[in-house]
Amino acid sequence: MSGFPDLTTVDKALEKIRENINLSVEVEEVPLSECSGRILAEDIISPVDVPPFDRSAVEGYAVVSADTFSASTTNPIELSVIGRAEAGQEPSQLPEVTSGKAVEIFTGAPLPYGADAVVMLEQTKRIGEKVLIYSPAAKWRNVSRQGEDFTKGKPILLKGTRIKPWHIGALASANITKVKVYRKLKIGILSTGSEIKEIGEELRSGEIVNSSRPMLTALVKERNCIPVNLGTVEDNLEKITERLKLALKICDIIITTGGTSLGEKDLVPEAVQSLGSPGLIVHGIAMRPAKPTGAGLVDGKPIFILSGYPVSALIGFEVFVDEAINYIYGTRPEPRPRVKGKLTRKLATPVGYRSFVRARVTRDSSGYLIEPLRLTGSGLLSSMTKANALIVVEENVEGFDEGDEVEAYLFQPIDAPL
Amino acid sequence: MSGFPDLTTVDKALEKIRENINLSVEVEEVPLSECSGRILAEDIISPVDVPPFDRSAVEGYAVVSADTFSASTTNPIELSVIGRAEAGQEPSQLPEVTSGKAVEIFTGAPLPYGADAVVMLEQTKRIGEKVLIYSPAAKWRNVSRQGEDFTKGKPILLKGTRIKPWHIGALASANITKVKVYRKLKIGILSTGSEIKEIGEELRSGEIVNSSRPMLTALVKERNCIPVNLGTVEDNLEKITERLKLALKICDIIITTGGTSLGEKDLVPEAVQSLGSPGLIVHGIAMRPAKPTGAGLVDGKPIFILSGYPVSALIGFEVFVDEAINYIYGTRPEPRPRVKGKLTRKLATPVGYRSFVRARVTRDSSGYLIEPLRLTGSGLLSSMTKANALIVVEENVEGFDEGDEVEAYLFQPIDAPL
Repeated sequence: MSGFPDLTTVDKALEKIRENINLSVEVEEVPLSECSGRILAEDIISPVDVPPFDRSAVEGYAVVSADTFSASTTNPIELSVIGRAEAGQEPSQLPEVTSGKAVEIFTGAPLPYGADAVVMLEQTKRIGEKVLIYSPAAKWRNVSRQGEDFTKGKPILLKGTRIKPWHIGALASANITKVKVYRKLKIGILSTGSEIKEIGEELRSGEIVNSSRPMLTALVKERNCIPVNLGTVEDNLEKITERLKLALKICDIIITTGGTSLGEKDLVPEAVQSLGSPGLIVHGIAMRPAKPTGAGLVDGKPIFILSGYPVSALIGFEVFVDEAINYIYGTRPEPRPRVKGKLTRKLATPVGYRSFVRARVTRDSSGYLIEPLRLTGSGLLSSMTKANALIVVEENVEGFDEGDEVEAYLFQPIDAPL
Repeated sequence: MSGFPDLTTVDKALEKIRENINLSVEVEEVPLSECSGRILAEDIISPVDVPPFDRSAVEGYAVVSADTFSASTTNPIELSVIGRAEAGQEPSQLPEVTSGKAVEIFTGAPLPYGADAVVMLEQTKRIGEKVLIYSPAAKWRNVSRQGEDFTKGKPILLKGTRIKPWHIGALASANITKVKVYRKLKIGILSTGSEIKEIGEELRSGEIVNSSRPMLTALVKERNCIPVNLGTVEDNLEKITERLKLALKICDIIITTGGTSLGEKDLVPEAVQSLGSPGLIVHGIAMRPAKPTGAGLVDGKPIFILSGYPVSALIGFEVFVDEAINYIYGTRPEPRPRVKGKLTRKLATPVGYRSFVRARVTRDSSGYLIEPLRLTGSGLLSSMTKANALIVVEENVEGFDEGDEVEAYLFQPIDAPL
């Protein structure tokens, strides 16, 4: 009675999609200021040592460590202060430190030749041209050694890394100004349906606003990809096919919405099947919501046939499109926040389906409470705006009892206004 | 011996910062296509019912529910098909359904007058102008009722919400084209230090690259705020003070890096103190790394005095600047991914300090393993690039033994290339 003769599991569908993707993405060089969130297309080998010279990590006195080994608060050792080292000075400008001598030094200053440790200011007492050392300093104590952060010729970052702000800091520290990243994927969004109007247009009775397009556009941008507006076509096989042909020329990935449940008007799967090999590879997934999701591949490019219902389209995107993007880029999915808590009521889910249940997580003195929302319609975006978490129930689980500990993916702060 | 006579706890420092912030952020109206990630500055009340009319959620037959109550597979009931309802049609164009009659209906089509349920196609059999119904349909079965998602006059989203793609979907469904959000905060970044050069510049011996600026710039952008480059000033009190005065005219938040440990050259705290009331409110925090962090407030605007060491600057940003941004916007921090696992070695941390320990999380058949890195220098960005998680050890904890279960914040995928 499902309407789909053969439902495919989520994992099997993902496997089939990955097996058939055949896209090579060009590489582009971008300045450091533009690379945040992009995917590195090369290993980055450090061209220099970082730090480039031995530096003092603290303020104090640069010494010969062996001089200080017997120092204590009751028995300080005395050294002659022969100069001063400031950040930004060249090591060659500084006096050489030999046994019995010390150089006053500031944080970040180069270590003078001959010195092999720095005693912190707090463990010293200055008296005129002399300094008393109250504590021993082991060799290289309080010194940032040349190359200890990144070593010339050794990798800083590896291909496939999604570049984060601290990666940019690391690249900058080695004076790297540009990196090679994969170009942004172009993801086309094609809406189908005769009742669909764009936001801002006036609605006749019987028409509804295309809420999926602005949502999917925002999702694509959030993934650092480029959304391509493929417009809306009515439920007409020829028109859908023509638009998809055009889309295959300009996009790397195509998303369609609408026209996917099995009925007289379900033309998108038919259009995809007609476009080439392997064509439609899956239609009807053992998941709730988003069962009518389909996927095809033409010229190695994936086409995702998402539901016209916005919540199904959202979950279809998160499960399938997101995975395809990561797979094409050769990168790993970002970790997602999860939370474990006690279910506040029984949750029944159909065996054989992967269920995505919108829930609201709250906190009390005993820990987290997870309440599955009663709003479940895949057309109801309020099931997302009133939720802050998603419980993913695996295919072999029939559901949970009230009080069971379950895990949920948090997509909003627990105490956000809902 | 800490060098800071009075260390303030992280929580106390945050409290003092919040108490003294006094900024009102203007509101701006942005189109839906530009609002992702922005903070909503108004409650959004639905101007319409969503859906705007009763719609069929499936393909099948629109009926009078009472007609179907006795239907079964062995004893189907027969109805006359009097027409057909397609998506996009106006309800007034459709035939009225009365007892004994049915209208063929497609997903998304308006429910004809008189009908109060839809029987799914799979539970029917069409024979010419008649249809057999094999299953009873309760009242409003398979119908998306007018206003069931969002009701005219009721809130869709509340002020303070960080706008996500599905929120955009929800706003679009109510045909809302623009929303009021807080303008992006301008966050100034001022580097201090005589040894600092910008990326791409040639380094003399003794000089290092300013790795904190590009990192902090990326962090500011990631928070949807506007970075303002306040340049680099040498270690000179007058120059630092002048630059901060200028910055207070154009920025909402100011970040400085460098010049913060307690030494002859630590001029930034002195400059902040001189600028107005309350001036410097905290300097020296009971945390590791980032102990020399300070904060001040002038004209109600926070000034964060971060370390010249990039890892300390990063953690100072994540702990203090991030909190200030959320506080000013009146929004809650985003949930962060966490993972629980077994510690692979003993971890000793100083009591009285909040410790931020870089770690690498891996997975084996028994679950997650968390290995604290031995690289700990606050100048070592490699301690971040080689880690994928941060263990936050609270002030009252002395550390953990090998095998203890601990929690870590995941900032990279577990299986990312490191």
